[in-house]
Amino acid sequence: MSTSAPILASIRNNWLPSLDPNRAASMASKAPRSDFEFKPVSLKEFETVFPQLVDDLAQHCKQYAPPEDALKWYKDSLNHNTMGGKCNRGMSVVDTTSILLQRSLSKREFFHSATLGWLTELLQAFFLVSDDMMDSSQTRRGQPCWYKFPKVGMIAINDSFMLESSIYVLLRQHFNTHPSYASFLEVFHTTTFQTEIGQLCDLLTAPEDHVDLNQFSPKKHSFIVIYKTAYYSFYLPVALSLHYLSLATPQNLKQAQDILIPLGEYFQIQDDYLDAYGAPETIGKVGTDIMDNKCSWVINQALERASPTQREVLDECYGRKDAEKEARVKAVFRELEIEKAYLEYEDEFVRKIRDMIAKVDESEGLRKEVFESFLKKIYRRSK
Amino acid sequence: MSTSAPILASIRNNWLPSLDPNRAASMASKAPRSDFEFKPVSLKEFETVFPQLVDDLAQHCKQYAPPEDALKWYKDSLNHNTMGGKCNRGMSVVDTTSILLQRSLSKREFFHSATLGWLTELLQAFFLVSDDMMDSSQTRRGQPCWYKFPKVGMIAINDSFMLESSIYVLLRQHFNTHPSYASFLEVFHTTTFQTEIGQLCDLLTAPEDHVDLNQFSPKKHSFIVIYKTAYYSFYLPVALSLHYLSLATPQNLKQAQDILIPLGEYFQIQDDYLDAYGAPETIGKVGTDIMDNKCSWVINQALERASPTQREVLDECYGRKDAEKEARVKAVFRELEIEKAYLEYEDEFVRKIRDMIAKVDESEGLRKEVFESFLKKIYRRSK
Repeated sequence: MSTSAPILASIRNNWLPSLDPNRAASMASKAPRSDFEFKPVSLKEFETVFPQLVDDLAQHCKQYAPPEDALKWYKDSLNHNTMGGKCNRGMSVVDTTSILLQRSLSKREFFHSATLGWLTELLQAFFLVSDDMMDSSQTRRGQPCWYKFPKVGMIAINDSFMLESSIYVLLRQHFNTHPSYASFLEVFHTTTFQTEIGQLCDLLTAPEDHVDLNQFSPKKHSFIVIYKTAYYSFYLPVALSLHYLSLATPQNLKQAQDILIPLGEYFQIQDDYLDAYGAPETIGKVGTDIMDNKCSWVINQALERASPTQREVLDECYGRKDAEKEARVKAVFRELEIEKAYLEYEDEFVRKIRDMIAKVDESEGLRKEVFESFLKKIYRRSK
Repeated sequence: MSTSAPILASIRNNWLPSLDPNRAASMASKAPRSDFEFKPVSLKEFETVFPQLVDDLAQHCKQYAPPEDALKWYKDSLNHNTMGGKCNRGMSVVDTTSILLQRSLSKREFFHSATLGWLTELLQAFFLVSDDMMDSSQTRRGQPCWYKFPKVGMIAINDSFMLESSIYVLLRQHFNTHPSYASFLEVFHTTTFQTEIGQLCDLLTAPEDHVDLNQFSPKKHSFIVIYKTAYYSFYLPVALSLHYLSLATPQNLKQAQDILIPLGEYFQIQDDYLDAYGAPETIGKVGTDIMDNKCSWVINQALERASPTQREVLDECYGRKDAEKEARVKAVFRELEIEKAYLEYEDEFVRKIRDMIAKVDESEGLRKEVFESFLKKIYRRSK
């Protein structure tokens, strides 16, 4: 961690009264770690913060004296589209912050890290509301998609914009005196652009109405997964926590990225695998990737292995809204032993990632435990 | 203008080598002005800058090594949706900068102010692509709307996101060492949110499929016009120029806002008026506000003046896709002499705004000529 000018240090100390500037180095030098035992935040605790943020956003809006129905609509959209998910992304900002500090958070630290967490959830809400429209999805979190509510329709496009804008309103309200304020803005801009280019590639590769398996490749799958999912779901929460604690050195950010992007890729590959092989009663939905012509890990593995005859079946049956054709695709998957390939990939991946985690350099205040916690949450998940 | 610390002054001088820090005050003190004669930038000159910016964005994208079709799509969307308009917003950044400096711009100043101008055009492109979807519009600038191209469809939502994101990529590339970098970010965020809340109010007030004239009021019309149009079209370009020249003092920003927001309102009222009364061969389109149930200045004036019988006609005929009903609405407009009311409003407004411009305090480097130039461009326009 670079030594800062006195004024910066005083700002940082004002932000983090309990973080000793030499803490990072001292933490690394002590061989036996403190006896702090990390306890992940619960969804219930995390959710207590959101109503305050909705109030802040409403207050911000009120300076413009909007008509009442518009203000109410905005609040309804915030609540409906941001609350109600699993909040893994948001909660991981709080968890990472506690792990990096190696202690429980003060009230103020909890509020700030949870606020940063909710900003990742707002970013996700912005993407989900619009993705559902682009994918013609019907349901989300057990309810109709937002744009499917009769009164909403295409207004959902503007609602998604306002979810995104809310990120910057809240950043300004709560962090504009933080020494990393500009970095917070830039990390959100960068991640947003990365996700959008990933989404564009996904839309171009797997249009719902035109099946062409030649468009698919493991390389494209990897690009889509990394840009559309891994950056905002895995790297962003940790980057925010590092910036919040003024621990975002180039080395720490690079180590975080080098581990979290593969972890995010693994997470999405699990998703693709569970869509085809998970038990609907466990994963809570019936997989539709085959019928929806999705460029998933499973079909890409099958294409790598298929004989000309099997390829013909895939070309004829993949991406069709037809249960019989879907069954024929699944039969090819079975012939090609994709499930076995998945279990092998998982073993090999987890071995490699554990190796990488073991080699993390903690001298600038990063901690292996951040990544162990992520891995633990997703390893061999069945839903 | 506040005196800055030496380091800030050196950054500013690096940015504006030819701007003497005491220039603003000295300009104001000299009674007879310099013999500089302001010449507005031409569309052709302004357009020369955009290909360079598309290259910058493509270069930025290439670091992620996206598939070729995604990169090509992004560039096509940038060119199609940002080029081809009148560029009044963008060009006014260049013009304002030259007026404030009271001289022709150096190559570097031209490039930077034109880049800021193109950022306002990117913001506009983001809004237009998505507004066309929300309004179910068919054509834009004499071509099908972007989402109406068969290959585009709902991908246009993500394209609009990428147009917005491009603003922040370019700001970072070209202005991240500028002393007003954080202000540039904030002014774009604020303006974006203002436009979105204006758009939300517009969508809720005038849904295409449900006519209820009780929803309309001059107050709501004013809110929609100010937030949906005036901030980004009139205030934003001048605010950017002021920040660029480090002349964005609170007083200058306030004076700019106090004049440009009413000017923007006047501009939109002209638009509403021309939609009903302009000659199609002059305005280049057939007005559709009546059939489209738009909350325009014209219908709001009519509602203020209508007798119960006339109100009945409006309730029955406004917002219907029916030429005979449209004609009956127009007949009521004639009976109520809305055209005369418009001409009276215009005279009164222009008298007041000239008065405000005459009172502008130029002591901090702002100039009346900035506003005179805006007014001159739109006063009594017929298209």
